[in-house]
Amino acid sequence: MPELIPTPLLGAFDLLGVAVFALSGALVAAREKQTFVTMAFFALVTGVGGGTVRDLLIGIPAFWARDPWIAPVCLIVALLVWFTPTRWWERKVLDYTDAVGLTAYAVLGTAKAIAYGIAPVPAVLMGVITGTVGGVIRDVIAGRPSILMRPEMYVTAAFVSASGCAIGLYFDWPRVPVWIGATAAGLALRWAAIRWSLVLPPYSRNQ
Amino acid sequence: MPELIPTPLLGAFDLLGVAVFALSGALVAAREKQTFVTMAFFALVTGVGGGTVRDLLIGIPAFWARDPWIAPVCLIVALLVWFTPTRWWERKVLDYTDAVGLTAYAVLGTAKAIAYGIAPVPAVLMGVITGTVGGVIRDVIAGRPSILMRPEMYVTAAFVSASGCAIGLYFDWPRVPVWIGATAAGLALRWAAIRWSLVLPPYSRNQ
Amino acid sequence: MPELIPTPLLGAFDLLGVAVFALSGALVAAREKQTFVTMAFFALVTGVGGGTVRDLLIGIPAFWARDPWIAPVCLIVALLVWFTPTRWWERKVLDYTDAVGLTAYAVLGTAKAIAYGIAPVPAVLMGVITGTVGGVIRDVIAGRPSILMRPEMYVTAAFVSASGCAIGLYFDWPRVPVWIGATAAGLALRWAAIRWSLVLPPYSRNQ
Repeated sequence: MPELIPTPLLGAFDLLGVAVFALSGALVAAREKQTFVTMAFFALVTGVGGGTVRDLLIGIPAFWARDPWIAPVCLIVALLVWFTPTRWWERKVLDYTDAVGLTAYAVLGTAKAIAYGIAPVPAVLMGVITGTVGGVIRDVIAGRPSILMRPEMYVTAAFVSASGCAIGLYFDWPRVPVWIGATAAGLALRWAAIRWSLVLPPYSRNQ
Repeated sequence: MPELIPTPLLGAFDLLGVAVFALSGALVAAREKQTFVTMAFFALVTGVGGGTVRDLLIGIPAFWARDPWIAPVCLIVALLVWFTPTRWWERKVLDYTDAVGLTAYAVLGTAKAIAYGIAPVPAVLMGVITGTVGGVIRDVIAGRPSILMRPEMYVTAAFVSASGCAIGLYFDWPRVPVWIGATAAGLALRWAAIRWSLVLPPYSRNQ
Repeated sequence: MPELIPTPLLGAFDLLGVAVFALSGALVAAREKQTFVTMAFFALVTGVGGGTVRDLLIGIPAFWARDPWIAPVCLIVALLVWFTPTRWWERKVLDYTDAVGLTAYAVLGTAKAIAYGIAPVPAVLMGVITGTVGGVIRDVIAGRPSILMRPEMYVTAAFVSASGCAIGLYFDWPRVPVWIGATAAGLALRWAAIRWSLVLPPYSRNQ
């Protein structure tokens, strides 16, 4: 058993990640004119995907197996989407909310991996993978081009959040500010990138 | 070690799920004009996919690692498909057999999760995920649109079977009838949905 | 704890598999005109994907969680691709290098599974799955048709390497020659198949 990390806030982060990814999953199902059951399924799978892969990589049971809140949260999100018109949820809004899940999970994946004794560099990689898996699963099941290939610094934002978290914990700074700060840094970058279409230079040596 | 569930019937359910998903995987390979080795690989991966994800989520070794029957069954299925014309296996037939794997695995995933101490609601979710993963893997590898997005109550049927199983086991009804009844209920719904193109109302608030 | 297999050579095989799959992942990112961070991410995920699935199936922690070399190797590969024109890396070259990862991982997956007490036939299946997963993940994330569906004996080469390894270890032949020989056999077959467009007979009973 590793050093236990404070459950309440980490649990809140997990729920936040679940809720925003669930929202993005439910919206994809709405765009595809699916039934409510399929919409709830998309909300669940997209919501728990990132955290599940994180837990499998660390080698612990999936976090939602014994949690009383995950399933209701996903169901509530699906109900919310079901009873509202999709124009309330513009594609841009979806990108902004997806960014919250991306960066919150990147921080959470990194923090949990470090708590279980993984070294900083692999922990950052686990954080980035954790943050991006939910969106990949959602896009793959729906047969859509993956959001990872979007130009506006998607993986970069996850990397900023994950490495910010690892650096802060390495220097033993107080955890809660580190988690919040690292999430905010990646989120600010991603939101700025969406808002002003900021891109890192793409590969351009193709001649 | 959890309470052991009777191996023979559960083993038979596992083999049934493996066999019908293997069949659907081999048929996709046949449609794509693949070689026999690729066809056998599709039969295997589609056949064991659902059960493998179930076992990983529960946190136990993959069920096919020590089983002497899984691989031969998949191979026999691949041989069967290889030596018969695909017109023997119409697309509709594939949908009907896929439904058997879907609902059998949904029940099996739920029952195994409950046997390992997972609470009923997450166990139902695990059952639904278990039932649908085989088809998703098959479709993703073949680059086809996922069967999950079909309108005829695919996820719904898995949900009926999984929750039927969880309700029956919760009230401590005899296991074997519960398993068979829950599989039959989901199967009847899915078959009826395919036969008469029944659909739940799709999301329609897009304006 | 299973009988320990000699770490140095097996570690070298793991690094080789990681490096060539990382190369193929980075090249796909280059073709898609991604940023350097996304390219590094592709290199990592493609590089560690096969070995990670192998370790999850066996039920042990992911091999890269505590390894000091995996991440730097993937980063170096990504830098190499970033600073060179893609015409240095023709599509054919990518196919040839992908084949090295495919067969090395097929052997490694089989050998590690056998070392952990898995029976020969499931061990061969694990080897084939391990070898092919990296390429599937790369293609799925990039939204490309999977290399598995290519006609030139892709799965067949993995099967030759995996079963060669299992046969050699079953008869207790010296390990190092078995590993190298089994990799070389599958590699020769795959390279010959690419070079001369060799194919096994495809399924052709569709009438």
